[in-house]
Amino acid sequence: MSVRAFAAQQPHGELAPFEYEPGPLGDEQVEIAVSHCGVCHSDLSMLDNEWGMTRYPFVPGHEAVGTVRAVGSHVTTVKPGDRVGLGWYSKSCMHCRQCMGGDHNLCSTAEATIVGRHGAFANTVRAHWAWATPLPDGVDPAKAGPLFCGGITVFNPLVQFDVRPTHRVGVVGIGGLGHLAVQFANKWGCEVVAFSSSAGKSDEAKKLGAHHVVNSKDDAAMAKLTGTLDLILVTVNVPLNWPAYVSALAPRGRLHFVGAVGAPVPVAVFPMIVGQKSLSGSPVGSPATTADMLAFCARHGIAPVTETFPMSKVNDAVAHLRAGKARYRIVLENDLKA
Amino acid sequence: MSVRAFAAQQPHGELAPFEYEPGPLGDEQVEIAVSHCGVCHSDLSMLDNEWGMTRYPFVPGHEAVGTVRAVGSHVTTVKPGDRVGLGWYSKSCMHCRQCMGGDHNLCSTAEATIVGRHGAFANTVRAHWAWATPLPDGVDPAKAGPLFCGGITVFNPLVQFDVRPTHRVGVVGIGGLGHLAVQFANKWGCEVVAFSSSAGKSDEAKKLGAHHVVNSKDDAAMAKLTGTLDLILVTVNVPLNWPAYVSALAPRGRLHFVGAVGAPVPVAVFPMIVGQKSLSGSPVGSPATTADMLAFCARHGIAPVTETFPMSKVNDAVAHLRAGKARYRIVLENDLKA
Repeated sequence: MSVRAFAAQQPHGELAPFEYEPGPLGDEQVEIAVSHCGVCHSDLSMLDNEWGMTRYPFVPGHEAVGTVRAVGSHVTTVKPGDRVGLGWYSKSCMHCRQCMGGDHNLCSTAEATIVGRHGAFANTVRAHWAWATPLPDGVDPAKAGPLFCGGITVFNPLVQFDVRPTHRVGVVGIGGLGHLAVQFANKWGCEVVAFSSSAGKSDEAKKLGAHHVVNSKDDAAMAKLTGTLDLILVTVNVPLNWPAYVSALAPRGRLHFVGAVGAPVPVAVFPMIVGQKSLSGSPVGSPATTADMLAFCARHGIAPVTETFPMSKVNDAVAHLRAGKARYRIVLENDLKA
Repeated sequence: MSVRAFAAQQPHGELAPFEYEPGPLGDEQVEIAVSHCGVCHSDLSMLDNEWGMTRYPFVPGHEAVGTVRAVGSHVTTVKPGDRVGLGWYSKSCMHCRQCMGGDHNLCSTAEATIVGRHGAFANTVRAHWAWATPLPDGVDPAKAGPLFCGGITVFNPLVQFDVRPTHRVGVVGIGGLGHLAVQFANKWGCEVVAFSSSAGKSDEAKKLGAHHVVNSKDDAAMAKLTGTLDLILVTVNVPLNWPAYVSALAPRGRLHFVGAVGAPVPVAVFPMIVGQKSLSGSPVGSPATTADMLAFCARHGIAPVTETFPMSKVNDAVAHLRAGKARYRIVLENDLKA
């Protein structure tokens, strides 16, 4: 059965209906009937071939939620009818040091859902069983898509770096990733400081769980934070006044990047030494951490704030995201026939 | 009783005999009769006022070993006759979040032994009791001085960042700090890679415990290390090819600075994200970590490799260090009268 999808034929191209033959289902594979798919900035970067690795025709989509339609002969973790989600990665080798250690997301041969293969702006997407994560009760399938890339990207550092409920956490950028980071950090028990250069987002950030909102362009407000934050999570991908953020870190603090800031960050070593500070980055999380995140969302009523478009209006959704208007994350609802 | 010391009267000045009155011993203070004192690069930096905070007359010396001569009325941890050591810090507030949490070394008001007060190129030095650490049996007082600054600086990261015996540790620079880092990491159970640009140090590094020695100027050798090291400890303070070291890190790896590299380190964010890598710094350790280090040294027979000068020849010792000839650490043996 052909897969019905939306594909671009060239960089910056419009997405148009596209069909392809997926071939026989692999022994380790799960086939998902996509009900919803989030639209992530990485979909745009890939669509525009910003990273030089896009193959056309290109089918975006790596925040998929749907129902298992079929499973390969070796699959025991899910069965047809199960509700699952699929994110940035759809396969990892399962036997390297990282995979065997639970860090499948750090596998050097992990396969991304939209790199060299077709993604989930489609009625169907396939993945290795390890990456098809069951949705627990209490997580709304219509909103869950963005958790599988944007969500896990900001949840993962809380786990990886042993963030504690007594910590003070800063979130830089209140957008698709940041609005989830604020919710996670609040329910994690932390004191949460949201940094935004948009004055208009202050009330929203507080509703999401920020205890304080700081205008990052206000030098006096930044100076007041000196030495106070245990973790600062950078969700933007533009250069900022990094020394000011390093100063805002408490001793042992960490300035952590999940947004691929293009320009190198110049790090003065002396303040890092004196305060035992770290600068770091991380990608999406592992399947196990993703499952933990979903359980955490269900327990605490955390969900992405979404705007929904029918998948047939995908070009409108893309234009909305490009215009910087998404509040905070776009989900496509599938109206393609199976 | 006057303290007999060696002091410089100006930046780059010769050290000449100098006496000062220490005043009454404080309730929390310990007075140490200095038997030995290491000579550290920081003594030179302060002597030359490189950091702009030297007060003259300036008495260097912050790697002291000696015997307790007297204690203040509140001191219960040591008694006259005990053998102790004293390092970079000689006082901390004892009540801030850092002190109360065991991170006295991160106290923002901690007092350095040679900043705004007189150091241990003298027959006597004083400190708050918390910073006068007893020397256990099995640690040679004649060689122990350099452990209290150089040693603890490289031991501390193994503790702080949960380095495990299964890890692979790189040590950049086989000098005063590096030759101790190699010994520590070896006895910690790790696989140790020493990086040196001096071909002549290869055999010595192996004798100290390096399993591999890599010439950091050899691009092919560096490339072979890609993705292999869990921790790289940078003990030098000159700019190097940092991207090559970041590449050498394994997933979750850490590039850690204990040498105050002057030029900002430009960090490309993308490789940090993909590999969940960190860049960090740390100063000397806490009193508790220092005590753990001394016990570790005693248990494993770890000691600085030292060259000894009588304290009266301190200017020869300083010249030897300035010339880059120290192998690997200089200790002054006290020949000043009490």
